[in-house]
Amino acid sequence: MNALVISRPGAITLADVPRPDRDGECLIRVRRAGVCGTDLQILEGYAEFTGIPGHEFVGVVEHAPAADAVWVGKRVVGEINIGCRHCDWCARGIKEHCDNRSVVGIRQHDGAFAEYVSLPAVNLHEVPGSMDDETAVFAEPVAAACRIFEQMAVAPDARVAIVGDGRMGLLVAQVLRTAAPDVTVFGRHEAKLAVARALDLSAELSDARVPGSARFDIVVDVTGRPEGLRRALELVKPRGTVVMKSTFHGEAPIATWPVVVDEVTLVGSRCGPFRPALDLLASGAVQVKPLISRIARLEEYESAFAEARRALKVLFQVP
Amino acid sequence: MNALVISRPGAITLADVPRPDRDGECLIRVRRAGVCGTDLQILEGYAEFTGIPGHEFVGVVEHAPAADAVWVGKRVVGEINIGCRHCDWCARGIKEHCDNRSVVGIRQHDGAFAEYVSLPAVNLHEVPGSMDDETAVFAEPVAAACRIFEQMAVAPDARVAIVGDGRMGLLVAQVLRTAAPDVTVFGRHEAKLAVARALDLSAELSDARVPGSARFDIVVDVTGRPEGLRRALELVKPRGTVVMKSTFHGEAPIATWPVVVDEVTLVGSRCGPFRPALDLLASGAVQVKPLISRIARLEEYESAFAEARRALKVLFQVP
Repeated sequence: MNALVISRPGAITLADVPRPDRDGECLIRVRRAGVCGTDLQILEGYAEFTGIPGHEFVGVVEHAPAADAVWVGKRVVGEINIGCRHCDWCARGIKEHCDNRSVVGIRQHDGAFAEYVSLPAVNLHEVPGSMDDETAVFAEPVAAACRIFEQMAVAPDARVAIVGDGRMGLLVAQVLRTAAPDVTVFGRHEAKLAVARALDLSAELSDARVPGSARFDIVVDVTGRPEGLRRALELVKPRGTVVMKSTFHGEAPIATWPVVVDEVTLVGSRCGPFRPALDLLASGAVQVKPLISRIARLEEYESAFAEARRALKVLFQVP
Repeated sequence: MNALVISRPGAITLADVPRPDRDGECLIRVRRAGVCGTDLQILEGYAEFTGIPGHEFVGVVEHAPAADAVWVGKRVVGEINIGCRHCDWCARGIKEHCDNRSVVGIRQHDGAFAEYVSLPAVNLHEVPGSMDDETAVFAEPVAAACRIFEQMAVAPDARVAIVGDGRMGLLVAQVLRTAAPDVTVFGRHEAKLAVARALDLSAELSDARVPGSARFDIVVDVTGRPEGLRRALELVKPRGTVVMKSTFHGEAPIATWPVVVDEVTLVGSRCGPFRPALDLLASGAVQVKPLISRIARLEEYESAFAEARRALKVLFQVP
């Protein structure tokens, strides 16, 4: 099959490789796959991943182990963490923190920038028939946004700021708005802020002056850059919460004493639940079409990744 | 009266100054005052404080406004934040975060390294008659440790680590042990770790190897140094909590991606409730006598501060 393959950190090519054949997993024909910031970091060597990247996808199950035959023919999206099934975390059903987990397209498991991807049936979620592929492929990042609801109470009168106007920022903003209507996106790109405004979100340039009295209860850093956390800490109220969604490599120098004096809480937040994500996508509460900058073919990967570095969402249409 | 006075950041002397005379506040004759890490930082210029430092004290009310006459003659300890009484925070009873607060010995309010200190009656707590001065003077830092219970659930089976074997570390360890018996202190000083062990706490050198499977649910950084946060993040489990109690000046470079990937929560934590602190001191659950390195007179301030930099608790006995 055709696939984008990272042979050594930082080097990707289109190659003809065998279909995945992993014991106990379902074989899924990929229809759409999304490019996310983590993929771009992986291309630069993050996580020292080799193999096929890509962890946001929608596809159709073509083959399954006998016990999971019910999945064959279903259109699915998939959770990306695959646990060892033996450790304490797996016993508690939290495969996201299994020490020996593999992660689709990120860690010891081939991903979805390919004609086929494989996953255990336990990771799959059927896509409602009424939802098109371009919407369903956003299930994984929307689930990551929904994770915030599992980690903290978001009160209806909470004032929320999103630092970062990229694809993830505009998803997190829409997801949090379903609980707390007062959401403002801070970003550096007029074009992306215009998309935010078209989605009826408040939008401001990153360096907009925010008086102390107008600071926010909840601030989410989705910039993917060290400055993002610093800005989030400027924007948050005493006793407020900063949600950390940025997995850039390297260290962020932060002045910790204001965190202590203002008793701020910082919460690292990663993968989330697919079912509420699919519900938000199905209901239209989270709009994804305005975020799609381009739909490319695998062969066009070079220009597609280049566009993903500056634009909003780039999808691969496979084959 | 005699008082230690900072005339410009970094310069402290013993001086004869007028007694405090602040409208609406009680005049308290100081009996004991404790030296804390924040005082040592203030001596080096932190918070650009000028005036009389010192915010841990026990004393007797000698004079009070007519409305608060009931306090005269009582032996008291005192909360250190004085709110403006007009802002939203004050309306909610949270003077700790009032934007216009003064803080005894730290911000726009003279402190307790003096014969007298003044405070509004609303800040005072009577000390039980059975408690001696050397114990009562610990009420403020023990209250700061009790703040953690207001901020998070500490389950009885939680494994707790304290990073920092100083005076605050040994108090936080004893306080958290009342909720979760499995507490380990990590420190750099064999003599202080010996005190921890004498208090029946587990104690380890800071760089002790801790395997991934032995990481902690709750880790409290009380080192007062940038490396403390980094070590705390190494010691905490996925989905665990790091409590930040260190208010050193400057920036700590932290690798944020493990916080995100492991979904760690960091909680800034400052001042806390005096009533439970006095209860823990009264019950003997928190032992303070083994922490007292020296009791000095105000005139001995130079050697007292020098000792406070390397030892555990140094108290001033006044006059």
